[in-house]
Amino acid sequence: MDKIFASIITIGDELLIGQVVDTNSSWIAQELSKIGVTLKHRVAVGDIWDDIWQALDEESKLADIIIITGGLGPTADDITKPLLCSYFDAQMVVHQPTLEHVQHIFENILKRPMIERNAKQAEVPNNCTVLKNEKGTAPGMLFKRDGKIFVSLPGVPFEMKWIMANHVLPMIPQLYETGFIEHRTLLTAGIGESFLAEMIQSFEKALPAHIKLAYLPNFGMVRLRLSGWGSDQNILIHEISSFFDSLKELVNEYLIIDEDLPIEVAVGNLLKARNETVSTAESCTGGFIAHMLSIHPGSSTFFTGSIISYANIIKETMLDVSHKTLTTVGAVSEEAVIQMAKTVRNSMNTHYSIAVSGIMGPGGATNEKPVGLVWIAVASAHKVVSKSFGFRFDRRRNIELTTSNALNMLRALIVDNSRENI
Amino acid sequence: MDKIFASIITIGDELLIGQVVDTNSSWIAQELSKIGVTLKHRVAVGDIWDDIWQALDEESKLADIIIITGGLGPTADDITKPLLCSYFDAQMVVHQPTLEHVQHIFENILKRPMIERNAKQAEVPNNCTVLKNEKGTAPGMLFKRDGKIFVSLPGVPFEMKWIMANHVLPMIPQLYETGFIEHRTLLTAGIGESFLAEMIQSFEKALPAHIKLAYLPNFGMVRLRLSGWGSDQNILIHEISSFFDSLKELVNEYLIIDEDLPIEVAVGNLLKARNETVSTAESCTGGFIAHMLSIHPGSSTFFTGSIISYANIIKETMLDVSHKTLTTVGAVSEEAVIQMAKTVRNSMNTHYSIAVSGIMGPGGATNEKPVGLVWIAVASAHKVVSKSFGFRFDRRRNIELTTSNALNMLRALIVDNSRENI
Repeated sequence: MDKIFASIITIGDELLIGQVVDTNSSWIAQELSKIGVTLKHRVAVGDIWDDIWQALDEESKLADIIIITGGLGPTADDITKPLLCSYFDAQMVVHQPTLEHVQHIFENILKRPMIERNAKQAEVPNNCTVLKNEKGTAPGMLFKRDGKIFVSLPGVPFEMKWIMANHVLPMIPQLYETGFIEHRTLLTAGIGESFLAEMIQSFEKALPAHIKLAYLPNFGMVRLRLSGWGSDQNILIHEISSFFDSLKELVNEYLIIDEDLPIEVAVGNLLKARNETVSTAESCTGGFIAHMLSIHPGSSTFFTGSIISYANIIKETMLDVSHKTLTTVGAVSEEAVIQMAKTVRNSMNTHYSIAVSGIMGPGGATNEKPVGLVWIAVASAHKVVSKSFGFRFDRRRNIELTTSNALNMLRALIVDNSRENI
Repeated sequence: MDKIFASIITIGDELLIGQVVDTNSSWIAQELSKIGVTLKHRVAVGDIWDDIWQALDEESKLADIIIITGGLGPTADDITKPLLCSYFDAQMVVHQPTLEHVQHIFENILKRPMIERNAKQAEVPNNCTVLKNEKGTAPGMLFKRDGKIFVSLPGVPFEMKWIMANHVLPMIPQLYETGFIEHRTLLTAGIGESFLAEMIQSFEKALPAHIKLAYLPNFGMVRLRLSGWGSDQNILIHEISSFFDSLKELVNEYLIIDEDLPIEVAVGNLLKARNETVSTAESCTGGFIAHMLSIHPGSSTFFTGSIISYANIIKETMLDVSHKTLTTVGAVSEEAVIQMAKTVRNSMNTHYSIAVSGIMGPGGATNEKPVGLVWIAVASAHKVVSKSFGFRFDRRRNIELTTSNALNMLRALIVDNSRENI
């Protein structure tokens, strides 16, 4: 059995002048990986006929499955569909079910008249399989040539995802013997990438060729991922699980989560399992911790709310930080965050709370308090833990690092709390 | 003068299995565009010797400047440096200033012993120009061959950005006659992409070949961008400004901002110019509006704070939404958001406030209230404006759309308020 390879071609000038970040590709990559398809190559080209044509030629040499996203909208900068028509020697024809679908969307959902430009979205090359787009007007299209498949999808993320999930991903295992790919990921905190590498050097050297280890540093933490490929899923799972167990033992001291979960999901899962709740009092993160706690479905079971005290006066009036604290040690201090954590936990009546105050930059530094100085406190009914950090990055990254460290401190407090209650 | 083309090669398995979203490329693309370099192609490959080699061969056929990011870390999954050494027929040597820089970072900043693996980061191919990395241990490297330049940069975003900004971008105009690229962007709301296209059809057809129009739909709004290229910057600016003025007149009814600014920055600028402040009371967005208002530097001058009332009890206790409102019309109602907006504006003592309550999905819908139903209110001292929306997307996108619409309602209220006060 050979590996099945895929390539992604992303079309659009907006990707090449950097006005848009490409999130589609990483989603497609993840989904392909789950069904045993290896992404070989990703390429982005502008809305230029020859460049798209050449990308199709090149990628079809490298891959079995070529996924094309973007360039299918109703406006004049979209040239992908006529190009595909010509590339696959087809005639453009009206696809009646798509036309009815577009009419339906305009009449019943958008409730405005359809114009000629919208009707054009129902035209497709006559040798493609049309992939219905429940979420929009531009259909997906599938072409076959020389044992390879070419799939053209709209660039709008939720439309692309719907067509992939409902048409493309179910079809691939029927067309190819893909084999299996398995990943195991764990998250460490408190140790740098190079020290981690030193620590697990001999483990890494002993890995067989079909299992790879990757280091993924992010948000001040390092994720370790084992990826294996094989034709027998059971054997592969057994083998990779055994390596993963050894890896967990080796990094045990720094291990936070042994799943590929963002830290906020891990914290949410802990709280859900215990029927416990959390609130936040945020200054420098400006609501980002609350956002991370509430971005995933089901968060209303454990996240109660927050007081974002961006201005100092709000720390005084709503979080009981004393005027004396603010004028002596200041808002970025251990005293302040401990009080903020206590008050918000009480006023929101939650099991736990998080409080943060810091200087995210670029402005706001003083002689005693540099950019990146952050105080974090987490509180339960019985305990408050506080800690200061010195981050050395830009504003956005300092906010992210404050958030991940605050969530990790809460995680430790919850685990600790459960131990004490046994 | 010919156009100068660039390609970006991004290296790393994590990009191909989708564990990481590539934000580097869009930043590089933007910066290159500013100095008149056209990005021709972007490609992502895994940590595989032959694939990287082939990408170097292919991209050097297409572009004058090849920018390689990633694959320079201290761990064993990084093979880029030895590959570049071999590709450019070089010998690996220790670069003394880099070694001293790495030693300095460990001794004075990280305050832990340096290990052999870190010292290795100071080794470079002997025919490259070393580009000092002030922000980390892995240096950038520049190679020249056949009139083309190859730049290898670390994948960590703030390290990559520092080297680009301090070494690479200043050097390019000295090496090439790049010409000039100018962009003008405006933001519209309340009209779909296809209707906009219909409205400005004849304008678009009349554009000269060196000026392009692009439609960039995002967050339920459509951005229109004019991009022009030319050898004389003054002529180009004059020409593109004149087309941009015509475009603004054509879409005037739907025009929100005539700059390439995110809506939250436009709102922040309005508030700063008026010395006015805003607070938010958020349910369904869970702090995302507060986050957007506070993510940019200088936001403390206009953003005071928020009450995130994720649980209904917090709407009652902290935002004065009556128990009767919650039990009759419910938390997702006009009554509720009007009260939330009034209370938070008063208790935070701000000029304006925003309040939102809605059902973001996938759970939480009832017979009367589907997923995507959102009520938004914005308040000033004299006026409260409220409006309901029906978003049809996934949780994350519904949160983003609620945020952009709330910010746009606030923008309208501020502009309206200023008119009334004249």
